[in-house]
Amino acid sequence: MEVIEAIQTRRSIRKYKKGMIPDEDLKKILTAAQLAPSAGNKQPWRFVVVREPEKINELAKIANNQMWIADASVVIAALAMDKGSPEIYPKWVERDVMIAVEHMVLAAWSLGYGSCWVGAFSEEKVKEFLGIPENMTVIVLLPIGIPDHKPEARPRKPLSEIFSSEKYGQTLKI
Amino acid sequence: MEVIEAIQTRRSIRKYKKGMIPDEDLKKILTAAQLAPSAGNKQPWRFVVVREPEKINELAKIANNQMWIADASVVIAALAMDKGSPEIYPKWVERDVMIAVEHMVLAAWSLGYGSCWVGAFSEEKVKEFLGIPENMTVIVLLPIGIPDHKPEARPRKPLSEIFSSEKYGQTLKI
Repeated sequence: MEVIEAIQTRRSIRKYKKGMIPDEDLKKILTAAQLAPSAGNKQPWRFVVVREPEKINELAKIANNQMWIADASVVIAALAMDKGSPEIYPKWVERDVMIAVEHMVLAAWSLGYGSCWVGAFSEEKVKEFLGIPENMTVIVLLPIGIPDHKPEARPRKPLSEIFSSEKYGQTLKI
Repeated sequence: MEVIEAIQTRRSIRKYKKGMIPDEDLKKILTAAQLAPSAGNKQPWRFVVVREPEKINELAKIANNQMWIADASVVIAALAMDKGSPEIYPKWVERDVMIAVEHMVLAAWSLGYGSCWVGAFSEEKVKEFLGIPENMTVIVLLPIGIPDHKPEARPRKPLSEIFSSEKYGQTLKI
């Protein structure tokens, strides 16, 4: 699927058909994160890939009982490395994780899978459950699965509201 | 261009041929940001699109004299809204801007344009120069232009280093 089409048609998917994502496809999705740009190429991201159904069910509970997550084929916990680490740029560590996750979202969508950024969860419980070091930050849980609904596009602010031309607040004519 | 191909072939482009980006293409790139997902669909991003060559030249100076920026066709300043605003989620405001910017990076690349995340600049000077309100954060300057070099891929950490399976630190076999 073309980039522009993927961006236009992508939806946050919160209902999945039961089924596996073949390793071949999953590897493409993970590689999309691996190839994301990052400040100074520090690649300050780590991920835990959860595929065992009982574990996914537990993550759904930890994510404020959003039980639709339990039907995902995979849940990926996206982590930012320790802000005190000399290997990273503190200002960019959380930001860069965002880029890598959206690469997975778009790659998954282009292969026919749906996903949804999940930010509501107990970070402490996710860390305990997945054995994540205390000094890392859990940025997001990303369930990925086979879409079982087709949500309408959510409303978007018009280009004229979010874009200015040459100076902030000056109308962009395009 | 396909999503996976765009992600695989994308490079940070720091050398541009002189030339304009037609409005039709620029609009597709801006729309890619508009359509990005955000926490609670708050769309906490704003952008200033700079196309006047003298202004772009000035931004290159403000960006620690990275004068290669001066050859870009467009520079987009990406802003996060006021963290104190009731319209946004403070935790997500900067993060969400990252998603929107990477949508532009990939959309531009798919249309044949190169770009580069630029994080090194005097935020104060960018704000003053573009008339950006004090309470917003300048996340990044994104020059976009016609590529005039083909950089090699930067090294990436192996999947086995960045991905764990089921528990943090447990080897992912894929």
